[in-house]
Amino acid sequence: MIKPEPLRDMLGREGLTPVSEAQTILLDHLTPVVLASETVPLAEGLDRITSEDIIAPENLPPCDRSTMDGFAVIAADTFGASQSLPAYLNVVGEVFMGDEPDGKVSRGSCYKIPTGGVMPKGADAVVMFEHTVPIDEKMIELVKGVGSGSNIIRQGDDIRQGQRALSAGRLLRPQDLGLLAGLGISTVAVYRKISVGIISTGDEIVDYTKLPAPGEIRNINTVTISSQAKRCGADVIDYGIVSDSEEEFYSTVARAVNETDLVLFSGGSSVGMRDLGEDAIKQLELPGVLVHGVALKPGKPVIIGLSGNTPIFGLPGHPVSALNCFEFFVKPAIQIISGLERNESFPEATVSARLMRNINSAAGRLDVIRVQLSCDVDDYQAHPILGKSGAISTLSRAHGYFIIAEDIQGLETGSLVKVYLYL
Amino acid sequence: MIKPEPLRDMLGREGLTPVSEAQTILLDHLTPVVLASETVPLAEGLDRITSEDIIAPENLPPCDRSTMDGFAVIAADTFGASQSLPAYLNVVGEVFMGDEPDGKVSRGSCYKIPTGGVMPKGADAVVMFEHTVPIDEKMIELVKGVGSGSNIIRQGDDIRQGQRALSAGRLLRPQDLGLLAGLGISTVAVYRKISVGIISTGDEIVDYTKLPAPGEIRNINTVTISSQAKRCGADVIDYGIVSDSEEEFYSTVARAVNETDLVLFSGGSSVGMRDLGEDAIKQLELPGVLVHGVALKPGKPVIIGLSGNTPIFGLPGHPVSALNCFEFFVKPAIQIISGLERNESFPEATVSARLMRNINSAAGRLDVIRVQLSCDVDDYQAHPILGKSGAISTLSRAHGYFIIAEDIQGLETGSLVKVYLYL
Repeated sequence: MIKPEPLRDMLGREGLTPVSEAQTILLDHLTPVVLASETVPLAEGLDRITSEDIIAPENLPPCDRSTMDGFAVIAADTFGASQSLPAYLNVVGEVFMGDEPDGKVSRGSCYKIPTGGVMPKGADAVVMFEHTVPIDEKMIELVKGVGSGSNIIRQGDDIRQGQRALSAGRLLRPQDLGLLAGLGISTVAVYRKISVGIISTGDEIVDYTKLPAPGEIRNINTVTISSQAKRCGADVIDYGIVSDSEEEFYSTVARAVNETDLVLFSGGSSVGMRDLGEDAIKQLELPGVLVHGVALKPGKPVIIGLSGNTPIFGLPGHPVSALNCFEFFVKPAIQIISGLERNESFPEATVSARLMRNINSAAGRLDVIRVQLSCDVDDYQAHPILGKSGAISTLSRAHGYFIIAEDIQGLETGSLVKVYLYL
Repeated sequence: MIKPEPLRDMLGREGLTPVSEAQTILLDHLTPVVLASETVPLAEGLDRITSEDIIAPENLPPCDRSTMDGFAVIAADTFGASQSLPAYLNVVGEVFMGDEPDGKVSRGSCYKIPTGGVMPKGADAVVMFEHTVPIDEKMIELVKGVGSGSNIIRQGDDIRQGQRALSAGRLLRPQDLGLLAGLGISTVAVYRKISVGIISTGDEIVDYTKLPAPGEIRNINTVTISSQAKRCGADVIDYGIVSDSEEEFYSTVARAVNETDLVLFSGGSSVGMRDLGEDAIKQLELPGVLVHGVALKPGKPVIIGLSGNTPIFGLPGHPVSALNCFEFFVKPAIQIISGLERNESFPEATVSARLMRNINSAAGRLDVIRVQLSCDVDDYQAHPILGKSGAISTLSRAHGYFIIAEDIQGLETGSLVKVYLYL
């Protein structure tokens, strides 16, 4: 049983939880993966997450192969060969692709071999064509020696039978599928995709396909948040737009918690809605509300909760704030409950850029500044996009963002900033 | 009619085309987009490419709105307000979400307003709740003035009617869909996805699901290259494994060129196969072979050709070389023929890292060194993965790669390198 964290009040700036503390509270509450595993054909494994360690069932390569076009030789026959004192070898055979060579290479002889060809018995190195001169059909001259093992890849050099090819919790990239294909592994065990339930709230919110009456606002958050969740590998269930009435809202949140692995509701950045969001989570299983209000701009009014094992996020109504909260809290939560192994050493996509104007920031909160990038040769410049914080166009114009930490009150033109890319 | 470039010979290292020159030759030959456009529902537009400029059909927001919970005021009423000389305002109305407020704010009065609420007539600023003290139900005290326009977003501040919301050739990210949703745009014109034809060649290559006979090699490239192409937004048509016989190979390449937008064949890093690949391209429409052999390691034996408007790439048989050539040549080609606007200022995902050992490099070629990354606080270390160059496991273990340019013969421990991430 998880002990609930003490609740935080939401009174102006006081009581706001620092971003890193909110992340720690959230991530520490997320339980290890309880997702079911499923087996998919290798070619459908792209961007899925392995649910178990994968052990190499055989050696790769299964036998010694040449990595060059040339001649398979006994290295000792080439020692000391030079321009002034070349070595001469008899060409006694040829290796063909796809065949296992007959016979063997003995002292003073060699086989012609293509890149990828199976090494004939007896030979322990390959001399590149470029380093040989044909004397006649049956003899070559070489002017440079090779060491044993040169230009060959030995049985199991790539990966050895019984070695771990991939660990559990790995995102399958193209090259990971390639490694498995090379090992003859044609199906792969992956966690099932998680489902994310998305609820848009607010009596003023209307579907973006409808013409809003005066005062009504088109629903932007469902499409942006769904898209982000899909990019994180989740399936999305859209619970539509629900009114601010307690009955409808509570029951929709409860249904989503019941039916999906992670629930997001958005809208409700007004004071009344904030209470409604928190109260909805209080109706559910413990531990309930973990964090309410973080020292983040934009994104202050976020609510982070948990019902049993199901994370629930109340995202601000402003699309920019909502996407910012997604980046800082929802994305890491999706990754963890999807079974992705936390590998702190794996970096996010960033570039270093030169800040092109002074930026002020209030102490005590983490500021996220959206930027456009320009480039001179290999040097990036970050141009802050100022505009109103609620403006979705600022996010559409942005290439990425940088962060001003809580203890810094601003940055000067020319400072080097780390820009996280919106890919 | 495009004039063919002079062909390059492939004789050892001489005659190799430098990578940047090969890229220029390739990209300069690619014609502007001739793809058909299709209209998709907004929610299905994620990661597609816009085929036309999108103009805002209306103002966003459509009217002035508050960006804070507070009171809608006439800014002039608040000028000079301070702790010692507070201003007092009568609360004469309240704005509700989703409604257009009745009445108007006159001097000395204000309306209560939630975040996102429509500004009542007369008011030109919002005072945050936190900066007010209620005197009674009908009056507030404020101790700080606000300027006109404070805490509101005006009609069209986000984007103005008639302004370009998105230009043609843009990849649609979540926030771009959000901008369109905010403007009530529910369908979007995008280029159709391109199709990439993939052919694996070599009499020694067998499907990875089959048990290879001695000398045979499992097909790794089709799964890795298909996956990369899919990640670039392309549809893939797999033409299977074809033999090295001229008749079968030429006819399969010709069919793929006829049926798809870009053709990749792989295998054939042996000398015989190199000729076969080049000859297959020579059977097709001009301009034919553009580049054969580049000063890139791994990836030297790549063939780059064009039949009419269809790019054709002969990728090396080694999976590591094939993926490297994909990164340097195929990916930018896919992006261009998919209609993605070339925006030189948009960076690839990189991190700066400290090199953890000396690396030698031959002058005159571009070396791609795969690395694992580790992290101390905010500082990354790049650990080169040495292993044999043909080994797919080195690519599976890698977080990314850095480049050693043609004019540099090596890098010392401690050098700062720019690591391109394998995401």
